Amino acid sequence: MKKASSLSELGFDAGDASTGFFRPVDAATTPTAHLRRLTKISVIGAGNVGMAIAQTILTRDLADEIALVDALPDKLRGEMLDLQHAAAFLPRTRLVSDTDMAVTRGSDLVIVTAGARQIPGETRLDLLQRNVALFRKIVPPVAEHSPEALLLIVSNPVDVLTYVAWKLSGFPSCRVIGSGTNLDSSRFRFLLAEHLDVNAQDVQAYMVGEHGDSSVAVWSSVSVAGMPVLKTLRQSHASFNEAALEDIRRAVVDSAYEVISLKGYTSWAIGYSVASLAASLLRDQRRIHPVSVLARGFHGITDDHEVFLSLPARLGRGGVLGVAEMELTEEEARRLRRSAKTLWENCQLLGL
Amino acid sequence: MKKASSLSELGFDAGDASTGFFRPVDAATTPTAHLRRLTKISVIGAGNVGMAIAQTILTRDLADEIALVDALPDKLRGEMLDLQHAAAFLPRTRLVSDTDMAVTRGSDLVIVTAGARQIPGETRLDLLQRNVALFRKIVPPVAEHSPEALLLIVSNPVDVLTYVAWKLSGFPSCRVIGSGTNLDSSRFRFLLAEHLDVNAQDVQAYMVGEHGDSSVAVWSSVSVAGMPVLKTLRQSHASFNEAALEDIRRAVVDSAYEVISLKGYTSWAIGYSVASLAASLLRDQRRIHPVSVLARGFHGITDDHEVFLSLPARLGRGGVLGVAEMELTEEEARRLRRSAKTLWENCQLLGL
Amino acid sequence: MKKASSLSELGFDAGDASTGFFRPVDAATTPTAHLRRLTKISVIGAGNVGMAIAQTILTRDLADEIALVDALPDKLRGEMLDLQHAAAFLPRTRLVSDTDMAVTRGSDLVIVTAGARQIPGETRLDLLQRNVALFRKIVPPVAEHSPEALLLIVSNPVDVLTYVAWKLSGFPSCRVIGSGTNLDSSRFRFLLAEHLDVNAQDVQAYMVGEHGDSSVAVWSSVSVAGMPVLKTLRQSHASFNEAALEDIRRAVVDSAYEVISLKGYTSWAIGYSVASLAASLLRDQRRIHPVSVLARGFHGITDDHEVFLSLPARLGRGGVLGVAEMELTEEEARRLRRSAKTLWENCQLLGL
Amino acid sequence: MKKASSLSELGFDAGDASTGFFRPVDAATTPTAHLRRLTKISVIGAGNVGMAIAQTILTRDLADEIALVDALPDKLRGEMLDLQHAAAFLPRTRLVSDTDMAVTRGSDLVIVTAGARQIPGETRLDLLQRNVALFRKIVPPVAEHSPEALLLIVSNPVDVLTYVAWKLSGFPSCRVIGSGTNLDSSRFRFLLAEHLDVNAQDVQAYMVGEHGDSSVAVWSSVSVAGMPVLKTLRQSHASFNEAALEDIRRAVVDSAYEVISLKGYTSWAIGYSVASLAASLLRDQRRIHPVSVLARGFHGITDDHEVFLSLPARLGRGGVLGVAEMELTEEEARRLRRSAKTLWENCQLLGL
Repeated sequence: MKKASSLSELGFDAGDASTGFFRPVDAATTPTAHLRRLTKISVIGAGNVGMAIAQTILTRDLADEIALVDALPDKLRGEMLDLQHAAAFLPRTRLVSDTDMAVTRGSDLVIVTAGARQIPGETRLDLLQRNVALFRKIVPPVAEHSPEALLLIVSNPVDVLTYVAWKLSGFPSCRVIGSGTNLDSSRFRFLLAEHLDVNAQDVQAYMVGEHGDSSVAVWSSVSVAGMPVLKTLRQSHASFNEAALEDIRRAVVDSAYEVISLKGYTSWAIGYSVASLAASLLRDQRRIHPVSVLARGFHGITDDHEVFLSLPARLGRGGVLGVAEMELTEEEARRLRRSAKTLWENCQLLGL
Repeated sequence: MKKASSLSELGFDAGDASTGFFRPVDAATTPTAHLRRLTKISVIGAGNVGMAIAQTILTRDLADEIALVDALPDKLRGEMLDLQHAAAFLPRTRLVSDTDMAVTRGSDLVIVTAGARQIPGETRLDLLQRNVALFRKIVPPVAEHSPEALLLIVSNPVDVLTYVAWKLSGFPSCRVIGSGTNLDSSRFRFLLAEHLDVNAQDVQAYMVGEHGDSSVAVWSSVSVAGMPVLKTLRQSHASFNEAALEDIRRAVVDSAYEVISLKGYTSWAIGYSVASLAASLLRDQRRIHPVSVLARGFHGITDDHEVFLSLPARLGRGGVLGVAEMELTEEEARRLRRSAKTLWENCQLLGL
Repeated sequence: MKKASSLSELGFDAGDASTGFFRPVDAATTPTAHLRRLTKISVIGAGNVGMAIAQTILTRDLADEIALVDALPDKLRGEMLDLQHAAAFLPRTRLVSDTDMAVTRGSDLVIVTAGARQIPGETRLDLLQRNVALFRKIVPPVAEHSPEALLLIVSNPVDVLTYVAWKLSGFPSCRVIGSGTNLDSSRFRFLLAEHLDVNAQDVQAYMVGEHGDSSVAVWSSVSVAGMPVLKTLRQSHASFNEAALEDIRRAVVDSAYEVISLKGYTSWAIGYSVASLAASLLRDQRRIHPVSVLARGFHGITDDHEVFLSLPARLGRGGVLGVAEMELTEEEARRLRRSAKTLWENCQLLGL
Repeated sequence: MKKASSLSELGFDAGDASTGFFRPVDAATTPTAHLRRLTKISVIGAGNVGMAIAQTILTRDLADEIALVDALPDKLRGEMLDLQHAAAFLPRTRLVSDTDMAVTRGSDLVIVTAGARQIPGETRLDLLQRNVALFRKIVPPVAEHSPEALLLIVSNPVDVLTYVAWKLSGFPSCRVIGSGTNLDSSRFRFLLAEHLDVNAQDVQAYMVGEHGDSSVAVWSSVSVAGMPVLKTLRQSHASFNEAALEDIRRAVVDSAYEVISLKGYTSWAIGYSVASLAASLLRDQRRIHPVSVLARGFHGITDDHEVFLSLPARLGRGGVLGVAEMELTEEEARRLRRSAKTLWENCQLLGL
């Protein structure tokens, strides 16, 4: 079968062929001198999550160049060609792919979705150690090829692996971010929005803490159109008691598992979530997203706990520009600190 | 595990809960009276192709409501939830799904991606007959629930199945369209655009005829910036002989097979291709797309051949508004008629 | 000079010319049968405000057809041609214009920006009466040509004129909306967002009441990332006292006057504001906007006061789907009721 | 009246106020270190044309920072505030303005719309000399503040002033571009598209040469869906003779004058035209636009004529990446050379 990714692979020389079509205005000019200012995003891992992210970034026209990296060369080339074939329907974006990290050189943002999958019988710690081993192969070369990049970790367990990426990259903490509870918060907003029949973008609601079972739904600050949701729900509905709130939080956490049990994996929502982070970061949007950040010193987390977990953060071209000093109830803060303690214990086991 | 798709599934009554948040301006008013004018797109088949289409349509905000139908309820619910969870990152689109075609009621556009897969040892005709049987379960109820819809067929073999859908729907031919060579043409443009280092949207180039092996690359009319590409290539490059052109056409055709061999299926490019058709149709864009249309009477195809194959067609809210009377060389026209003859023989075997 | 708006004006017959280019797939087919479902927006008044609205709606691709109406035929034709000439840079939108309201027939949304300008020495009431006279020429024919349309009033004084439009149209109140304090709220959010260096879209803040001097800044519910802004500001800054809050509210109100004094009129921001309302309405977004709605019964406004003023409202394809029962402090509610009383007194003078 | 452009102007200190809201993740971090990679566009001249350009660029989200420069400080501040007030309806873009060119520092693209207006009785050459004097105040400081910028000239006479800007900037010719006939070509496409009832984006048609009376409509290469338009029109319509073609060309040229005579100026279409150029340039789109480029050596224009006129050019991040060697009929080429000769004579008079 002919390889269709370019005419040069069919034996036609690009240099020659453009003869007769275009000529530069001035022979002395080097029009490529400015190309370094193009925006480049790299996605490490071309699985369901990585590809949903890359495709959403492509549709939204967030980058001038997208680089894909995966260990499986066939899968990788297939995914790249499948995106390239849509050229006539999209603004032009340069798409490159390779199994070698060097293809990410000069990235503005590197998104890591690669991760080891659990082997039956494997302990959680063993799995984590295998992920650390994988990150040792990914993060140092990424940091070397793009020393000024922002690093966005999506692989799970995201909070621990964001800590790992921070340690392995040597980057300042403001440039290492985990996708964290950005998606959990969207799921939380979706549930509330559907219930109140409003647009989810008008629901101000945050899940914070660990991305996972111990995440904290910050009910105390949920608001819609300036209305405190919890207070209003409780006034009219005795049913919104503590147990009900926990049921809803649990439903948000379980919704990821539910999608996995139904379709085998999650992809679309994490793709949109990460693309929204990419937009806020690279276009210097200064939007507030609950993402995994170095959280020592916030809400009573002690300064020696170099733990990453999700808090509402102001994101821009420089990465994490600030972390919101949101009000938590004593109970919410207590849960957050408990999350932090567990996460930190996990991190310490890694010996980084 | 708690089902997280709504608070009502957790036992909270929507009617009650919105008490205390919003009140209508006037009790006598029925604000939903106008909802019938919302744009609704249904996608039949929630596999890789159907979901890439649905997700691209969602990202591009082309519909107010998207309905998904699939025979597998778990997969279907998983895909719907995965899209819904992104609510906070997208304009609001109502997403519904069901195994019952009734969920498509009132669609403006129904996109059919469902199709039977080849069983080892099965003849092509047996496979086709199974697809016809499948379409008998899909098309009549779709036509009944949305008698004014446009019908867009993506399932393969797309030209024959578009004919089948036309026959089974009883719709006028202008409202039954196959995705045809819209994607092949994008692949063709991508190859040429990469070679000349221009944007694929500036390459005017069409693949016509059958979506598949016998498709015709209309080299005679390929142009870039008003430059006739074939003539220019031939002037400067002896290598662009007939065999080379056939190599390039072959590479375009094979590129679909290549992606399938590499990643197992195609999804992204067909998703963008079909979303571009949806935009041209529903937003009355009158753009020219090479899509599968009733081709009798064009380029010497006899009037008794009720064959569907791809020709450049002007698409708008009414469906196919016109078919371009493009110039073909005698050789191109001969190939097209040969395609038509083979397709028509296949169609006749179906006894519709 | 040749009129360039069409070749038919140059003597070329469209019907004839398309011969040789396109042919329908089937003579018996009428592809235009479905055109009634296209989205049409009419803008009454082609001044700076009307044109900024029309152009923003065009750039955002919110309508399939835009109709412009103005009393000055030359200005009107000039504006339409100026938009049409950009055809190659935009998705296709049909643009029509006429001095006759009949051109608005079949609109989904009619935006009224026309208004009388104050004559030196004229009293406010005299000006209002002239505006009522103008609305008598606009609103009844608009309502007749598009009996199911949503009516969006932008002309000032917007609250009184929205009441006038409601009375003259005979439309249910949920379909008559004034642009109100949607823009004031954006200005409020901009000031706070700049101060806190966050994206204005993350600032939840509402101006309500009259669009104008007596508008109420609802400080009590302003929040950013779940943080109560007023409380936080006051904790850290003694300077944010009542007088300071009033200074800020005053600055918001005065910013419209400031722009007018500097450039002679306002246009861009009201264009974006109204386009955002059009999107929420026509695409059924159910977003919350502070717009002028029939406010009797809210916040202690008595039921016999048929007054329109701005409150956060949930907007969708049916118009005002609900009004938020936001919490106001007693002082905020008192100011709102005072606004309502003054506005209602003005309305009563009109004798509608 | 209170100035509303910021709380700091009201006496509130930004540094203090953000206390209590956000805190950096790490005191040692400097998150602004990467801000230099933001995309900045400057617009010189805040008149109708400059503001339509700036607003369209803002709506399309093409820049992270927009700088406006004008000699009139009040007008300038009014326009900036009017755009800023829309913050809640737009992605965040930093807007700055000043009468001093220093505000453009670090631009990626500088768009010059400023120009002297004809004084009654003034000769064309006197007007040109005044424009050169104006450009002497604009171009050198612009080039100094942004030595790597692309320079896009919109002021008229655009071809001569692009030459002037090239000379005064000392930039290589690939980085100095005039908006040229990009808009004329859109008008040409609009006329043909309306006539054939197709989307203007599917009409491949170029006006080249001088932006103005002597522009050349390249009828020989006009195509729609691969159909040669001129040949098809002539086959079916005897009326499309040479005189008719000249009438249509004339109508395109006159349409600018017509809009000016009707509404007093042109704005929207030039805004969209220039925004499309900005997108192709800054996002490295490699799209083909007919723009004013250094044309010596093309189509028989002699190498000693340093004339700028419009030819289809491939635009990207480096500016003009190539000029299409389009086929012209002998008559078309002759007209082009005549344009070039006249333009060059004008340029020589300037003594640059």
